[in-house]
Amino acid sequence: MRGLLPMNRIYLDHAATTPTDPKVVEAMLPYFSEKYGNPSSIHSFGQETRAAVEKGREQVAGLIGCAADEIVFTSGGTEADNQAIEGIAFANQQNGNHIITTAIEHHAVSKCCEFLKKHGFEITYLPVDKYGLVDPDAVAKAITAKTILVSVMHANNEMGTIEPIKAIGEVVRDAGTRYLVPGTKDGKRKIYFHTDAVQTVGHIPVNVNELGVDLLSISAHKLYGPKGVGALYIRKGTRLTPFLHGGSQERNRRASTENVPGIVGFGVAAELAKGEMLADAKKMAGLRDKMIKGILEAIPDTQLNGHPTERLPNNVNVSVRYIEGESMLLSLDMEGIAASTGSACTSGSLEPSHVMLAIGLTHEVAHGSLRFSLGKQTTEEEIDRTVTELKTIVERLRSMSPLGKKN
Amino acid sequence: MRGLLPMNRIYLDHAATTPTDPKVVEAMLPYFSEKYGNPSSIHSFGQETRAAVEKGREQVAGLIGCAADEIVFTSGGTEADNQAIEGIAFANQQNGNHIITTAIEHHAVSKCCEFLKKHGFEITYLPVDKYGLVDPDAVAKAITAKTILVSVMHANNEMGTIEPIKAIGEVVRDAGTRYLVPGTKDGKRKIYFHTDAVQTVGHIPVNVNELGVDLLSISAHKLYGPKGVGALYIRKGTRLTPFLHGGSQERNRRASTENVPGIVGFGVAAELAKGEMLADAKKMAGLRDKMIKGILEAIPDTQLNGHPTERLPNNVNVSVRYIEGESMLLSLDMEGIAASTGSACTSGSLEPSHVMLAIGLTHEVAHGSLRFSLGKQTTEEEIDRTVTELKTIVERLRSMSPLGKKN
Repeated sequence: MRGLLPMNRIYLDHAATTPTDPKVVEAMLPYFSEKYGNPSSIHSFGQETRAAVEKGREQVAGLIGCAADEIVFTSGGTEADNQAIEGIAFANQQNGNHIITTAIEHHAVSKCCEFLKKHGFEITYLPVDKYGLVDPDAVAKAITAKTILVSVMHANNEMGTIEPIKAIGEVVRDAGTRYLVPGTKDGKRKIYFHTDAVQTVGHIPVNVNELGVDLLSISAHKLYGPKGVGALYIRKGTRLTPFLHGGSQERNRRASTENVPGIVGFGVAAELAKGEMLADAKKMAGLRDKMIKGILEAIPDTQLNGHPTERLPNNVNVSVRYIEGESMLLSLDMEGIAASTGSACTSGSLEPSHVMLAIGLTHEVAHGSLRFSLGKQTTEEEIDRTVTELKTIVERLRSMSPLGKKN
Repeated sequence: MRGLLPMNRIYLDHAATTPTDPKVVEAMLPYFSEKYGNPSSIHSFGQETRAAVEKGREQVAGLIGCAADEIVFTSGGTEADNQAIEGIAFANQQNGNHIITTAIEHHAVSKCCEFLKKHGFEITYLPVDKYGLVDPDAVAKAITAKTILVSVMHANNEMGTIEPIKAIGEVVRDAGTRYLVPGTKDGKRKIYFHTDAVQTVGHIPVNVNELGVDLLSISAHKLYGPKGVGALYIRKGTRLTPFLHGGSQERNRRASTENVPGIVGFGVAAELAKGEMLADAKKMAGLRDKMIKGILEAIPDTQLNGHPTERLPNNVNVSVRYIEGESMLLSLDMEGIAASTGSACTSGSLEPSHVMLAIGLTHEVAHGSLRFSLGKQTTEEEIDRTVTELKTIVERLRSMSPLGKKN
């Protein structure tokens, strides 16, 4: 802690994590010290928590339009991504060793792919355009007779660009059933399609059938649920090996005693999101656009990163030239404003963001990027104050900047 | 739920899970909706939760006598076991592909070993004696020039037998530095030693240096902490690959946003255990012995499973001949008494427990085993009532039993 915290702090880092909704905490509370049975136990203590876990499963399934038994609870988004990718890879190795993903994935996907490279898999990283969009045709061209999995994130966590998942899903299904018929045993080939939807579920409508995905990762703490719990949607019939080995929980798909309070909280957060997200998204998109306009107009030599319209309703990502994102971040923090230079998971790294480099930014411009991610409680006053503070900070930092341009 | 729950339920399944201590819940509460920052974020919201995570780490380290930076938080005991075993296996594959474990491990260890078999590893499962004890000499004999890991649980979750971990640790170190010198590059060989201490930490004194282990697994919800969080002790200098791939959390050893409330709760539970466990263990061991004596005296054709003295202070495991453990369990549940036939993680399986078979029980006697695991709140009245109810239940079930002996 850097001394006393400023009054009226402004939290604009909801893409990193969200506060747990008090209604969520209230629902969780009885499951610590009163209803504490192990859901795998067959006695009454176990049955009451088993029922709670199944209710949570239905609530999460209800948010993404799948059957409850297609949901496997995990410890978070990272485990969901790891489970999807390693699970498909190891279970379908006999059909091929090729995985297609993109240059802008979260490290929970890309580092998992790097791990698989050491175990005989080949990985293709597709590029993106200047807005961060993946081209469905590029996916089609990358598919080979050895491809078993395509993993493309639903929306990018840094720049907020929403990917054309539905179109990519069609390409993947098409390639699986048509292009490769001659080379396969049963006349058709299954290529699984995974999307990391950690930034979208609970924020914009997500339906697994509309998107045409086989696997989809969710994290509770990104949608006002608790940290330490997530889920992987696994379409019925999907062939994958468990990631966590041990007991027979989650119908043999994920060992480990269920995080009952976490699952209960996740379920309630999913249900709240289902009811509130459209109105929240509309409000946030208005504030987002106001903030983008405010920054670009008030501060010279700034640019928006990511797609101007195919964009998460709560994401503002700008590059401010001639200064470092981290310096701005620390100055904003002194004023009680929380923002980010990119993924919280890679903060502390001196490398520029792989996402910013993938959209073609130079190292210098990439280093000057700043992400504000709004939440359902964010107010117009907070946005106005942030733009004003940022302008002052940028002017001060530029006047001291060794990187060239002075005011 | 089978209708209304009986009043004054008796919970004797603490080996499956424990109620979260209200002091633990109280400590967790601010970390949901007030102090919610992502510990990886560099702003003040992140710093306050980073500090909380590090405090939790010190508290857990303090319970097992290690340095704070030797603790990596996980989603529970299963992940800790999986991380230890797969992490050592994949990181040390160039030195050998042989792993030694026992016939009585929790599935979080044994199924992980089975997974590794598919990836080129060889597994030796050591037998145990009639009390469930592993022989340190058998470990010594099993070690080959290809052995990279030995994993022996600290205490068995079903029968409560406490293994001679210190003696096994000496054997493993000895084999690593002496027996195999000629065959290795640098004149000595490192064989890692892991113990699953999920049933012991917080219940009996555990010190990683006294035990001589390199890796040790802990689960918070077995020691009155919350579900969904655990830890792996990793001795400094241990070479292992991460299990979860992604962000740089836990100093690059475990990706995924930290479960802040869970870690805070785990820390407080560890601190409480450190202060209370000796007195609690003494009290429970008295009740345990009273219960064992009560059952063996009151009910004919019963036997104690596991070691009579080298035994967890809260574990009572008996076999009742001529009837099924599951029938007794359901009858006890009707009276509001929660017990178990073995591991909650394998309930629902029709196979007899691999642990009961490993100590030489016949299928029939193994099927008639019943575990009562006491907690720090367990009272003498509860024990007395349970013995009385069990006697009545056994008499009734035996009178209906198709398995032979009638009363």
